[in-house]
Amino acid sequence: MNIILLTQKDMDGSNSLVRLTGRRFRHIRDILHASAGNELRVGLLGGKAGIGTVVRIGDASLEMDVRLDREPPSPLPLTLILALPRPKVLRRVIFSLTVLGVKRIVLINSTRVEKSYWQTPFLGDGAITKQLSLGLEQACDTVLPEVIQRTRFRPFIEDELPSLMAGTDLLLAQPNAGHPFPESLRGPVTLAVGPEGGFVPYEVEKFVSLGFTAVRLGERTLNVETALSALVARLF
Amino acid sequence: MNIILLTQKDMDGSNSLVRLTGRRFRHIRDILHASAGNELRVGLLGGKAGIGTVVRIGDASLEMDVRLDREPPSPLPLTLILALPRPKVLRRVIFSLTVLGVKRIVLINSTRVEKSYWQTPFLGDGAITKQLSLGLEQACDTVLPEVIQRTRFRPFIEDELPSLMAGTDLLLAQPNAGHPFPESLRGPVTLAVGPEGGFVPYEVEKFVSLGFTAVRLGERTLNVETALSALVARLF
Repeated sequence: MNIILLTQKDMDGSNSLVRLTGRRFRHIRDILHASAGNELRVGLLGGKAGIGTVVRIGDASLEMDVRLDREPPSPLPLTLILALPRPKVLRRVIFSLTVLGVKRIVLINSTRVEKSYWQTPFLGDGAITKQLSLGLEQACDTVLPEVIQRTRFRPFIEDELPSLMAGTDLLLAQPNAGHPFPESLRGPVTLAVGPEGGFVPYEVEKFVSLGFTAVRLGERTLNVETALSALVARLF
Repeated sequence: MNIILLTQKDMDGSNSLVRLTGRRFRHIRDILHASAGNELRVGLLGGKAGIGTVVRIGDASLEMDVRLDREPPSPLPLTLILALPRPKVLRRVIFSLTVLGVKRIVLINSTRVEKSYWQTPFLGDGAITKQLSLGLEQACDTVLPEVIQRTRFRPFIEDELPSLMAGTDLLLAQPNAGHPFPESLRGPVTLAVGPEGGFVPYEVEKFVSLGFTAVRLGERTLNVETALSALVARLF
């Protein structure tokens, strides 16, 4: 927890005085070993970041005087379309994409995605939000990414993707693709990443027909988690 | 396992016929569902890659006719000096650095490394080699990275680092550093990465006195695992 995230509810009717209990309280007391007078990094979920000065620490709660005066880090101008990875990997991927500053993640189906992956409890709202929050707390960010789930490949590609991707550069990361990965596009990008082994030819064609360029990332076959961090870092 | 790794011992006295048992046999039979006549990607540890044609599959072993005629992927010209992460992260980091093609990893001590981290069984030769092998199997690579462990910061920096780093660009990834991260150096690089929170000022000074430039990677505080993939991807 590099930043203590506050919700609008924490702030309501309190002027700048916030009372914390539970996980955040215990973290501040037991991990940060904070005492009255200490200044901690805080941020309002969906809002500004700033400093909280500890006013009082009790046995089960603490009070902080909060000043929110800084913008959070800039969001990456990236929409990531990702074939649903297996549950254990999904959790870490949601976390690390949030850490990197990706703000829109679309999890889609693909021929090589095992059907059982869609049954995992990690896709539940609470579980996703938990990874997103942990990611924001790592990155000192305040803006929750949007995570969209689409279990049917073709309707998503044909009916939704054209408007989602409007005005962006279109890249499809695919093993053994003809083009090398571009460096530092800076502008907005829609990036599609397949399952391990890549999208099947029919799926690649659907992306290409919409204007996506299939690109490869180096000579090695990367696991999805490593590939995603590497891809995002190369783009921005 | 995207490639079946063979050792010199597998090849000894066999011309091109190799007999596999154990984990590799079970993977080929139960995961790849291979049968006689199938061609699989193979590679000799420390040597060339190629194709193995399954000749016979039995109940506890199989035989392959192996042709090794391709060079493995080029090694990244990078020496990574990394403050020892906590054990769980260490395991994944060794794996993903291997996947990315890093061939020399030096794990060092730092003020912010907890002493207990050096006691983990994951630092044992067998445990490290296991992660390295899994990484090579993911990446379709054959060349094991070298992993060096140095429990004393100052003797390493003063006595060993100068010759290790000779002729390379010198970068120190440090939160809030003055310089932005350079893009695509291509030449050989020595990159030092601290613990979460960075190296302490004394340590930074030691690196800087040897010619390292302290650079930052974006506005966000990345976890070590995500940071390493992002750093390596930005460099090469």
